[in-house]
Amino acid sequence: MHLLSIDDLSDGQIAAILDEGERWFAYNRQPRRNDHRLDGLTIVNAFFENSTRTLLSFEIAANRLGAQVVTMQVEHSSIKKGETLDDTARTLNAMRPDALVIRHGTRGAPADVAAIMDCPVINAGDGIGEHPTQALLDAATIRQHFGRVEGLKIAICGDLKHSRVARSNAKLLERLGAKLRFAGPPSLLPDHLGATGIDEAVDGADVVMMLRVQRERMEEDLGDGPGEFLTRYGLTEGRLAAAAPDAVVMHPGPINRGVEIEGSLADHPTRSLIVRQVEMGVAVRMACLDLLAAERLRQA
Amino acid sequence: MHLLSIDDLSDGQIAAILDEGERWFAYNRQPRRNDHRLDGLTIVNAFFENSTRTLLSFEIAANRLGAQVVTMQVEHSSIKKGETLDDTARTLNAMRPDALVIRHGTRGAPADVAAIMDCPVINAGDGIGEHPTQALLDAATIRQHFGRVEGLKIAICGDLKHSRVARSNAKLLERLGAKLRFAGPPSLLPDHLGATGIDEAVDGADVVMMLRVQRERMEEDLGDGPGEFLTRYGLTEGRLAAAAPDAVVMHPGPINRGVEIEGSLADHPTRSLIVRQVEMGVAVRMACLDLLAAERLRQA
Amino acid sequence: MHLLSIDDLSDGQIAAILDEGERWFAYNRQPRRNDHRLDGLTIVNAFFENSTRTLLSFEIAANRLGAQVVTMQVEHSSIKKGETLDDTARTLNAMRPDALVIRHGTRGAPADVAAIMDCPVINAGDGIGEHPTQALLDAATIRQHFGRVEGLKIAICGDLKHSRVARSNAKLLERLGAKLRFAGPPSLLPDHLGATGIDEAVDGADVVMMLRVQRERMEEDLGDGPGEFLTRYGLTEGRLAAAAPDAVVMHPGPINRGVEIEGSLADHPTRSLIVRQVEMGVAVRMACLDLLAAERLRQA
Repeated sequence: MHLLSIDDLSDGQIAAILDEGERWFAYNRQPRRNDHRLDGLTIVNAFFENSTRTLLSFEIAANRLGAQVVTMQVEHSSIKKGETLDDTARTLNAMRPDALVIRHGTRGAPADVAAIMDCPVINAGDGIGEHPTQALLDAATIRQHFGRVEGLKIAICGDLKHSRVARSNAKLLERLGAKLRFAGPPSLLPDHLGATGIDEAVDGADVVMMLRVQRERMEEDLGDGPGEFLTRYGLTEGRLAAAAPDAVVMHPGPINRGVEIEGSLADHPTRSLIVRQVEMGVAVRMACLDLLAAERLRQA
Repeated sequence: MHLLSIDDLSDGQIAAILDEGERWFAYNRQPRRNDHRLDGLTIVNAFFENSTRTLLSFEIAANRLGAQVVTMQVEHSSIKKGETLDDTARTLNAMRPDALVIRHGTRGAPADVAAIMDCPVINAGDGIGEHPTQALLDAATIRQHFGRVEGLKIAICGDLKHSRVARSNAKLLERLGAKLRFAGPPSLLPDHLGATGIDEAVDGADVVMMLRVQRERMEEDLGDGPGEFLTRYGLTEGRLAAAAPDAVVMHPGPINRGVEIEGSLADHPTRSLIVRQVEMGVAVRMACLDLLAAERLRQA
Repeated sequence: MHLLSIDDLSDGQIAAILDEGERWFAYNRQPRRNDHRLDGLTIVNAFFENSTRTLLSFEIAANRLGAQVVTMQVEHSSIKKGETLDDTARTLNAMRPDALVIRHGTRGAPADVAAIMDCPVINAGDGIGEHPTQALLDAATIRQHFGRVEGLKIAICGDLKHSRVARSNAKLLERLGAKLRFAGPPSLLPDHLGATGIDEAVDGADVVMMLRVQRERMEEDLGDGPGEFLTRYGLTEGRLAAAAPDAVVMHPGPINRGVEIEGSLADHPTRSLIVRQVEMGVAVRMACLDLLAAERLRQA
């Protein structure tokens, strides 16, 4: 079993990951953590794109389950010597890892690698494809806060066209019964989403999920001046006033303060769940690694 | 409790770290080391400046206590995506580390991070600020060699203006009762130190501590030709002849042979404590990590 | 005891490494691996040249024996600050590692480092010098496949002049009783080898071991057009037809498809041992680390 897309998970598996994620969340707050259930297993992180939070999150998650963790950094890789991704996958597979976590700049690369590997592969972000563990941690954070996801009005706002976070979240939150709204700059909206302006999306929303402006993935320049993006498409305190009274703000991070979100909102003690998302990230990744590894040990 | 500066430590804590450091020094020379007292704890090394010896030293120290160690390298960090240091700290904190070791090019950055973190923060060097574990390992090395620090005449020589090592050592060695002398190129002397020429500083000294020429931190070029720095400000065998008969030489490393210190002195079998400092470094960092983590577990 | 060259090993040690390598090969295929025999030992990987497969292979090998593993990457090292290799070795030694794995671009550098270290040093590739663990894993792979090495006709083909893999393999396979043939572009042949054309070398061979074209180590440009290297010096299906009926193909990786080897041959389900070599690599390195560490613990 792989975790390349939200589509790979059954409803039961999603529920199990959210439940276990909340459990690990509490566990991680304990002064000492002595669970070594993945002792004797090798988890390889293959990161072909730079990342801080996602790599650290997976490394800590695997460590906290007692696994042996090895990280391959692309800067030091054979890729520069012209090896194909398939050959890299065959090499990694021959080292008999028990799970492979992969981030890659090209959509579909994790699936190509998974087709070669004998162990579970977790997609930690593939270009403009998916980022399933981000969606799972977002859903777990929402559920922990509201006690449910079903029936909540959730606005996903920003560069929807290039966002793997939006793609995975749209799939997962819809399956969990949320009512989704989408908003963003017109040039950054995929055609198939019924997107609106941000004010319309935020109106009455329980959750406003802002996306990072992914300048590095944009094909067209938005041509905006300083502060212009925030005014036109970003989340401000004024704009959030139209949301539900207890509405919360989310962001996958790292945030661009004053671009897609007003800094004071990101730091808001009761409105912002942004830091909580990071904490849930480690917990949900523990749940994912445990689920995949446990299934594998059962098969053996 | 944090270890940002020597000022953070009580006299009792300093004594405990030096005692425990010597104990771990002996422990590390054993053929096998089975102490896992920090098993189940997560220690994050966040290095925003390149380093070999300090990072390796902390990684090995944490490993030898059985902790789970994760290292964040700035080259792969969100910093490049424009995230603020405060936001990075909030992200790291949300991952619930049990100690954070931070090196940063800006003085005061570790204190800013510590203000956000819920766990102990160890300053592994902040610009021209402090480097407390270096001072502790230097003091432990001196005490191990002479049996005491009190009353010893210790010369600290070199770029005093930009040296965090000098700053932390001056504080610590003075508290331990050493008689300090300072010397260096006039343009590299802070005003508040009563600094002299190197010959005066070395005269009768028990310990001569040479600092690395930190060209990367200097604002003015010294304009010296090849060998000129050594002749004017460096430590030579000739110059050391004026020190106490059993005087020893120290250096935080990495050394510039023939610049601030004559190569033969650095390698001297009885005079040089330079390699011993490195060995004591791992030991003293084990003592620091253990002290901070133990205090935290007690609080829990 | 160090493992700098095949010459460092007695016949008995070679036999023990091959036997243990095969045992760890089977062990690594188990669903869970609970051997922690090197728990409490520190293994340092010092890689002064980029590498993916070799570094990962050593990291996983050490992890699977329960050792604490720390990796020093040259990009972050003091080397850039001008520290000599000897001073780096003294620093590493002072941290009391229990084994040091070193890759370096300069032939002989691991031996220089070993002269300083108190712990066993394993050469993981030194310029155009040796790469003994690669030769050991190659021999183990051949022996596992054929049940023996003695008497086999083995062709080693490619850039023999710059290949540390060829150098170590020539020594080892000859000692194990193989009948060696060498072939390569005339400008890339060392004078002392009785080298032939590739067709002559492959004729009747049981094993054809292709070397990676090491463009980065070549002093002269071969001046070949696209596909010309493969046609003149590479291994094609047509060329392999002249080998023994059950001949196998090997390559230390990463492969240049269509340069030194035809892609279909590299992927051949029964003819290619290339992926098997990678798998045996982890196993044989476990055997080497265990042998060196065990000997050291016995001495203690």
